[in-house]
Amino acid sequence: MYPGDLLIIGGAEEKCHGAEVLSKFVELAGGSESIIGILPTASEIPDDVSSDYVKTFGKLGVKDLHVLNIKHRREAEDPEVCRIVDSLTAVFISGGDQSRLADIIGNTKLHMKLAERWKEGMVLAGTSAGASIMAKHMIVASDMKQNEDKLKIELGRGFGFMDYVLIDQHFSQRARFDRLLSAIADNNEIIGIGIDENTAILVRNNEFEVYGEHQVLVMDGKSSDYIDISTSKNGSEELTISGFRLHTLTAGYRFDLTGRKLLLKKGVSQNED
Amino acid sequence: MYPGDLLIIGGAEEKCHGAEVLSKFVELAGGSESIIGILPTASEIPDDVSSDYVKTFGKLGVKDLHVLNIKHRREAEDPEVCRIVDSLTAVFISGGDQSRLADIIGNTKLHMKLAERWKEGMVLAGTSAGASIMAKHMIVASDMKQNEDKLKIELGRGFGFMDYVLIDQHFSQRARFDRLLSAIADNNEIIGIGIDENTAILVRNNEFEVYGEHQVLVMDGKSSDYIDISTSKNGSEELTISGFRLHTLTAGYRFDLTGRKLLLKKGVSQNED
Repeated sequence: MYPGDLLIIGGAEEKCHGAEVLSKFVELAGGSESIIGILPTASEIPDDVSSDYVKTFGKLGVKDLHVLNIKHRREAEDPEVCRIVDSLTAVFISGGDQSRLADIIGNTKLHMKLAERWKEGMVLAGTSAGASIMAKHMIVASDMKQNEDKLKIELGRGFGFMDYVLIDQHFSQRARFDRLLSAIADNNEIIGIGIDENTAILVRNNEFEVYGEHQVLVMDGKSSDYIDISTSKNGSEELTISGFRLHTLTAGYRFDLTGRKLLLKKGVSQNED
Repeated sequence: MYPGDLLIIGGAEEKCHGAEVLSKFVELAGGSESIIGILPTASEIPDDVSSDYVKTFGKLGVKDLHVLNIKHRREAEDPEVCRIVDSLTAVFISGGDQSRLADIIGNTKLHMKLAERWKEGMVLAGTSAGASIMAKHMIVASDMKQNEDKLKIELGRGFGFMDYVLIDQHFSQRARFDRLLSAIADNNEIIGIGIDENTAILVRNNEFEVYGEHQVLVMDGKSSDYIDISTSKNGSEELTISGFRLHTLTAGYRFDLTGRKLLLKKGVSQNED
């Protein structure tokens, strides 16, 4: 038995014309046969967010939709919620603040149930905060301005469906290069993955493939031979790093997370090194 | 005879307390014996800019200052201006718009005189637009917002005191990572150098050393084995690149532009590879 597909979206995915990324999710979930749970817990306006996705997934042909409207930790411990998850083919985790997801759902029965069902093959998708929560570690700040003075980045615990990666979202659009670099400079075993808006990675067998409109950036510090983190007079973190490897990928290109290298589009022959 | 030092500043250098970067410039120029020319042509308010630097350099002990107030191309062809440059130990090029520098001074007698005197050892410094103009190629747009949709980057001709590098400035503060990456993806022989505000590189013998408060980022695509530049539906440029090398440096660290590698601070022993 293999774990289910993970579709990790950089936020602001197109919901009307085309809806390429969300169509891919519905296809992975089983198309018109899919039974999809919507988890809007990251948002402070979960009802609005849910009804948007209910409409969108309905237009994409999904007939069986369940809103998992978990607002408090005790609701995430409710066996009835877990029974609903047992019936699903896929769960979609909305945007908002990833800390809310961690605080309300982290280490509850619902979290365990999602992990159990994912290991059995259930599809999981997340956008924005729902993207960040997918890995074991995540950047906690929900929207830090990187144009202002650089700040020390804090990491928190995600849901743990991937390890040794750190996902950041709205990546080019919010110019988050510096914050992702700071985050992985502290632990250069971890691969940084910055996903642009209306763009997604589909993770399967420790590889991912890119879908959607823009870029995915991969930052790999494992082969670095020198890292020195210092703090300037005004408290901002300043980095000296040598030889980090950088890749960017557009739709169709793939990345090997074990070999830490770019793979060409399917059907294009690859030069092996 | 060796060319003079190049001090290339990422803009917004501190002019009062400390003034570390500008003090370094005055030291290189000859301290209290220096004869400094100020070139404010990049700015649309050259008189204000010049008088600021006259005050600042005066406070730093410089007694002999000449404002080269070149506003039109014919002034840059004036032999009298070139005679002034003959008397200088250093020239400081202000910020503004690098296209103005290229349009008004590029390929004039003044440009040739600056190059000639620099080759004889005259020190050159430039900040912001004055930093971008130093190399053979430069990013033309003076202040493109990278948070908005990515645009195709246009390159123009700089003064050519360095080759095979592209300088960008206000780098972390204006989140210019994407624009520098786009610019060098088109020509991966060129090393991209992004200099933060109140931070500078001192270039000498095809090495540079970092001075000032923040970071310098170096992007090197030479070892890349794959580059694919595409245009998305809305006209923005999207990149697939594999294996670019990335370095960041803080004060005291050095970079070998020939060997394309980070060098430790002076006095710290280097592991040779």
